[in-house]
Amino acid sequence: MDSEATPVVGMVGAGQLARMTSAAAVGLGIQFRVLAAAPDESAAQVSVGTVIGDYQSAADLMAFAAGCDVITFDHEHVPGPLIAALEASGVAVHPGSAALRYTQDKLAMREKLSGLGYPCPQFAAVAGPEDVAEFAAKTGWPVMLKAVTGGYDGRGVWVCGDLAAATEVLSHGLRLIAEEYVSFDRELAIVVARGPGGHGAAYPVVETVQQDGICREVIAPAPGLHPALAADAQRLGLSLARDLGVIGLLAVELFETPAGLVVNELAMRPHNSGHWTIEGALTSQFEQHLRAVLNLPLGATSSPALAGGWAVMANILGGDDPDLRSRLIHVMAADPAVKVHLYGKPVRLGRKVGHVTALDRDLARARDRARRAASYLAWGTEEHA
Amino acid sequence: MDSEATPVVGMVGAGQLARMTSAAAVGLGIQFRVLAAAPDESAAQVSVGTVIGDYQSAADLMAFAAGCDVITFDHEHVPGPLIAALEASGVAVHPGSAALRYTQDKLAMREKLSGLGYPCPQFAAVAGPEDVAEFAAKTGWPVMLKAVTGGYDGRGVWVCGDLAAATEVLSHGLRLIAEEYVSFDRELAIVVARGPGGHGAAYPVVETVQQDGICREVIAPAPGLHPALAADAQRLGLSLARDLGVIGLLAVELFETPAGLVVNELAMRPHNSGHWTIEGALTSQFEQHLRAVLNLPLGATSSPALAGGWAVMANILGGDDPDLRSRLIHVMAADPAVKVHLYGKPVRLGRKVGHVTALDRDLARARDRARRAASYLAWGTEEHA
Repeated sequence: MDSEATPVVGMVGAGQLARMTSAAAVGLGIQFRVLAAAPDESAAQVSVGTVIGDYQSAADLMAFAAGCDVITFDHEHVPGPLIAALEASGVAVHPGSAALRYTQDKLAMREKLSGLGYPCPQFAAVAGPEDVAEFAAKTGWPVMLKAVTGGYDGRGVWVCGDLAAATEVLSHGLRLIAEEYVSFDRELAIVVARGPGGHGAAYPVVETVQQDGICREVIAPAPGLHPALAADAQRLGLSLARDLGVIGLLAVELFETPAGLVVNELAMRPHNSGHWTIEGALTSQFEQHLRAVLNLPLGATSSPALAGGWAVMANILGGDDPDLRSRLIHVMAADPAVKVHLYGKPVRLGRKVGHVTALDRDLARARDRARRAASYLAWGTEEHA
Repeated sequence: MDSEATPVVGMVGAGQLARMTSAAAVGLGIQFRVLAAAPDESAAQVSVGTVIGDYQSAADLMAFAAGCDVITFDHEHVPGPLIAALEASGVAVHPGSAALRYTQDKLAMREKLSGLGYPCPQFAAVAGPEDVAEFAAKTGWPVMLKAVTGGYDGRGVWVCGDLAAATEVLSHGLRLIAEEYVSFDRELAIVVARGPGGHGAAYPVVETVQQDGICREVIAPAPGLHPALAADAQRLGLSLARDLGVIGLLAVELFETPAGLVVNELAMRPHNSGHWTIEGALTSQFEQHLRAVLNLPLGATSSPALAGGWAVMANILGGDDPDLRSRLIHVMAADPAVKVHLYGKPVRLGRKVGHVTALDRDLARARDRARRAASYLAWGTEEHA
């Protein structure tokens, strides 16, 4: 980047990840812009110079990129060919299309990772019931069916108990892969960053608690994780970022199984499992992503704020009452130390509209505080934690 | 505030304090706007919906306030009668004109605080050399002369060694007060917050290191401060906020003397001595100010990130090279754990253009890290720390 000018980072997408990245950009003294579908989107509310446009339009992407030094992403849904076209025209896109492909095409991801020797579930492309039956003959039931493209937050994933259920999913006409149903002890996640110079940094491994395919809670660091396994996960993340040529953040969702770690999903952007870093780590994942895509040195991932204790993040999923704000005062009064992050999104049932983070020396208390605050904001009661 | 609508906080002024408040507003899910003189001012660069106008114009202030639920301030320079006019028209202004007067008129501040029994230097309004001579006969030389209105960052303050020097200052025609030259061991500062409900919270007492009237360094908590004196300072801050009717933050600059604490200056806004709270405290002073003016419960001021260690903040004062950014990469590489905050302001010699904060378990190392990073950014060398 020009040493005189203030660099402009453009993020395609204007959800909560872009919103929190926007706040992180302030201290770095850079300009941060988003490409939003509408001016009231989460990040558009707080980002100066928001451009309204369609991330599926080549023209809109190109116009947005013209005002930016680096383009990066809030989500995985920008069509690969459009990203490649941006790159071909000389735009710096981080992560690039070659890396992003592995977050956009689950079959390509599985083939690539298996080929490189990363631990994956057994998988196969499936076009019809006979393919699924053949796959199940090897792995047993249930079988996971996943949409090759477009899924997120549990959408595009089906656990099929038998061939009839699989046949029903196949009838939707989506491209699908079958995956072995992995019997895991718990889910972990590792977030790493990698810069264009090949420099990398890993955050502590966290435990994620999912429900209906949606992340409900993240515990940092993962309680009771064997140090060797934690080191394995960090190495896996850094090595995968290098092997896939990721520039920016890479989040790897993992299964912890009796046989070791298994890779579940990938994301190349700030990730729900890293929200705790805003309060819990010296460098938040949002600042880290910006540093990486700007080819700045990566910040320390250490966590003096935890000091041997815990950070627990609980997502606020929309409840039956749209008026979060009227209860914010109660949550703040009940627990002056809990950190509430609201995303400025209209409340819909089950939608991620914010998160809370609690730091505590006691793990049970940290979980209790985070869950109570999140549930109270969404529902007005503590029952839905 | 309306429980349905997103509250809008408007801050008059668009310097770095407003810039950092803007970042703090993101997580609270509120709207934050600034009244800026120009679109390239520090906070205007990062705040959506910036209004361009003159803070000395009643019409501009009224138009700005019309779009906001609460008005607050980045500086003390809005004329008192204009603030009172806003209040008279029904605008919620926090802090209000009655409190702000004591940051705008040093004579009124001294009279009020002395009347309430707060420890102050001896003082007197002085109109001519004979008044200063009479004052010096009581206190001895040197005598401090201060402009009653308009001073900041060492401007409007003169240390006069004799009557000739005082006469020269008097010749400028400013309204002045004389103050006893206080022989202090060091300077301290306390930042407290107070909400409309009378609820208050105090941050730990810090030591501030000034040079030529400008804050260079802040150490949190103040090293070696006797716990009883620390408690005195916190009580003094909270009590003063109540006595003056402050809503929002109150920063009190103090002298530590052999006879105890003496009040030096007041500010009713986020303060340079509180920048360390961004990384060092659970609730930053910027978030705390927003909570206070919105009548939200105040956040915890505790500091798990310090964990028995220290936060040292060093201001980046402009050096002889305007291109800070070309050295940022070196500072980040040299110390991945130092936190750099750039304000987006053009570099001018001695101007505050950013700050750095270092957290460390070792105080000498924390000071060294913060000063080296700040000096290197400003000058490209470590010599000007």
